Amino acid sequence: MLVKLIQNSVVAPKGFKAAGIYSQVKKKNKDMAIIYSEEPCNYAGAFTQNHVKAAPVKWDEGRLKEQQPVHGIIINSGNANALTGEAGEKDTYEMAKLTAKCLGVHTKEILVASTGVIGVPLPMEKIKKGIETITVRLEDTPQAANDCAQGILTTDTFQKDIAIEVKEGNSTYRIGAIGKGSGMIHPNMATMLCFVTTDVAITKELLQKALISGVNETFNCITVDGDTSTNDSVMVLANGCANTPLIETEGEAFDTFCKALYEVLKYMAIAIIKDGEGATKLLEVQIQGALSKEKGKQLAKSILTSNLVKTAFFGEDANWGRIIAAMGNSGEHFEVENLCLTIESEAGKSKLFNKGEPVKFNEQRAKKILQEREITVIVKLHEGEADVTAWGCDLSYDYIKINGDYRS
Amino acid sequence: MLVKLIQNSVVAPKGFKAAGIYSQVKKKNKDMAIIYSEEPCNYAGAFTQNHVKAAPVKWDEGRLKEQQPVHGIIINSGNANALTGEAGEKDTYEMAKLTAKCLGVHTKEILVASTGVIGVPLPMEKIKKGIETITVRLEDTPQAANDCAQGILTTDTFQKDIAIEVKEGNSTYRIGAIGKGSGMIHPNMATMLCFVTTDVAITKELLQKALISGVNETFNCITVDGDTSTNDSVMVLANGCANTPLIETEGEAFDTFCKALYEVLKYMAIAIIKDGEGATKLLEVQIQGALSKEKGKQLAKSILTSNLVKTAFFGEDANWGRIIAAMGNSGEHFEVENLCLTIESEAGKSKLFNKGEPVKFNEQRAKKILQEREITVIVKLHEGEADVTAWGCDLSYDYIKINGDYRS
Repeated sequence: MLVKLIQNSVVAPKGFKAAGIYSQVKKKNKDMAIIYSEEPCNYAGAFTQNHVKAAPVKWDEGRLKEQQPVHGIIINSGNANALTGEAGEKDTYEMAKLTAKCLGVHTKEILVASTGVIGVPLPMEKIKKGIETITVRLEDTPQAANDCAQGILTTDTFQKDIAIEVKEGNSTYRIGAIGKGSGMIHPNMATMLCFVTTDVAITKELLQKALISGVNETFNCITVDGDTSTNDSVMVLANGCANTPLIETEGEAFDTFCKALYEVLKYMAIAIIKDGEGATKLLEVQIQGALSKEKGKQLAKSILTSNLVKTAFFGEDANWGRIIAAMGNSGEHFEVENLCLTIESEAGKSKLFNKGEPVKFNEQRAKKILQEREITVIVKLHEGEADVTAWGCDLSYDYIKINGDYRS
Repeated sequence: MLVKLIQNSVVAPKGFKAAGIYSQVKKKNKDMAIIYSEEPCNYAGAFTQNHVKAAPVKWDEGRLKEQQPVHGIIINSGNANALTGEAGEKDTYEMAKLTAKCLGVHTKEILVASTGVIGVPLPMEKIKKGIETITVRLEDTPQAANDCAQGILTTDTFQKDIAIEVKEGNSTYRIGAIGKGSGMIHPNMATMLCFVTTDVAITKELLQKALISGVNETFNCITVDGDTSTNDSVMVLANGCANTPLIETEGEAFDTFCKALYEVLKYMAIAIIKDGEGATKLLEVQIQGALSKEKGKQLAKSILTSNLVKTAFFGEDANWGRIIAAMGNSGEHFEVENLCLTIESEAGKSKLFNKGEPVKFNEQRAKKILQEREITVIVKLHEGEADVTAWGCDLSYDYIKINGDYRS
């Protein structure tokens, strides 16, 4: 397997076009995006676990259930169409219907995503005009890819996109993605969106399996503040235009695709964390030697969602007591007597706790390690074979500033 | 049942003495406290659910298991004796042993509590000198009660104590309490401690039952940052010195005691929240009409631990979307279509969401409501009969400041 980074994100795979425009829903900047493939696509999706789901999420879940091919995704930013009652569901339907009409496909062949303020009806006149405009701007140019990536952003401080080319044997195909992060739409619910395109040929069942496996190890292992949103969605469209042999059984070709998709999803997940609200540090937690992946994930998340841990990292303080206490707060059992805790960054490595006892560590050296922007916490449990990696960020004054601001 | 607020906290009930001194464990201020009854006491306790328990918590749990009477509690602040390995357990034992020796009782008749920095061995020379000094200072004066309440504080910004006198029929007895809150010991683990004394006569089984019931509705319904500590403890000593008829069966007298104890615990729990790190607002969440208390509590806690909700209250923003999304994040099922959400404070009341749809509310009026220091969020689920009340606080810049500071 050979993986090469390439340009043009979602239009890098053959047969995909995109566009991004300003439709006047937001006060400024692009706020509508579209991804389209003339060839029908197999479609896989993973959605928010929040019990309160926005109207577009319900629509996309419905399409996933029907397992029919789709042609594209229409996305608006600036308004999440969440907690908007029946009117909201009708608006989502109207978005799909109008997009489909403009593109000459069926309503159910268009997926919908929204992100932004909660509980405010979509300004449908603007949305409709936007859809009429954006559907005639579809291109597979670098500019189109760029506009599309920008059209889904809310308060993200940087654009998030990637594309790779995968070669294995005689097969060459591409995977592209755009995403938006946990930046609040000023100042409502954080939403994570990620749209992936690929020209590989793969059955919808295996596409879904690869996505879920990838999401479990990436998006489900990141946390900014422990809250999930009403709109979180990751969707993959595969149109088969690379003319590679159809992946229809698990085996080498499927494993290669899974690995490649995982790399794309991991890149996007970490980009989202790096752009976490007010984040000054990327924290990687490795739980090693856990009894199970599930248990390791619980422990890692308990560390990464603890405000006490997050503020300690913001303060660059080697406060290992908070890390172990946060693990104790997870509901999972572990033996403090077996536990080994190390911090690591480009500045070096320092063991802080070992086998039930604090380690006498050099405070100056620990401080240097913690002054870096990317820090790894390694917890060895010595209980089993499962290793888990999860990512999060620190908690800074800016988080309060961004999220404590009045809506406007 | 007649309840009267009285003075002198833990020495208000007959037969109890107390003291508080400076033992040089902290840089300044009192850092050791003791509560003692010459008459043996029945003892009830509730302890942290954190999997990582400090040495004194293990000691007190051991005594609770044995169900033998006790005579007192020795408490030090400034060092939590947590994650200190076997040496820490030995130090706790030494504290009990020396205190018992000085008071002429058995080692196992003395409970121990510690709060402060984690992972640092107790400075036992100072602790021993302190115990020798404090055990000869025991008195039942207002000054002694005051010193004792101060001796358990860490970074609390105010002293927390209360006492009440309960009259029912011919019975008169008293309940007193001191507590410390979620202020960090500069800057380690937050710990909640509460010590209750009463001169009522009650069996140890019913005392424990009353305590657990009270704690479930008070301390287990508060949250500052969702983290539990290694040392959280609530203990009650009942010495029977009021010469009231022994409460040995459930019935009227027991119910009265439960209600009185609940009021004391609720007072202390709310005092702790008001003194939450950087807290500028007390938030009360009422979940009404839930299918079960357990479910209501989960929903309330999900609201009160959401950083997005907490920062919205800090920003005085009527951001109801975050509240409902936080409920959706709880793992509990509820029907948005049945849900009614109201905010209330001394400045008035405003309905924000009703039956699946946003309510058009007056932003100015909502703003006024949220500018108060105590705010109630009322969520009506219309699903069942269970009502739950829980308390928390907002998330401010000062939380980051307090918890992001370096240890020193």
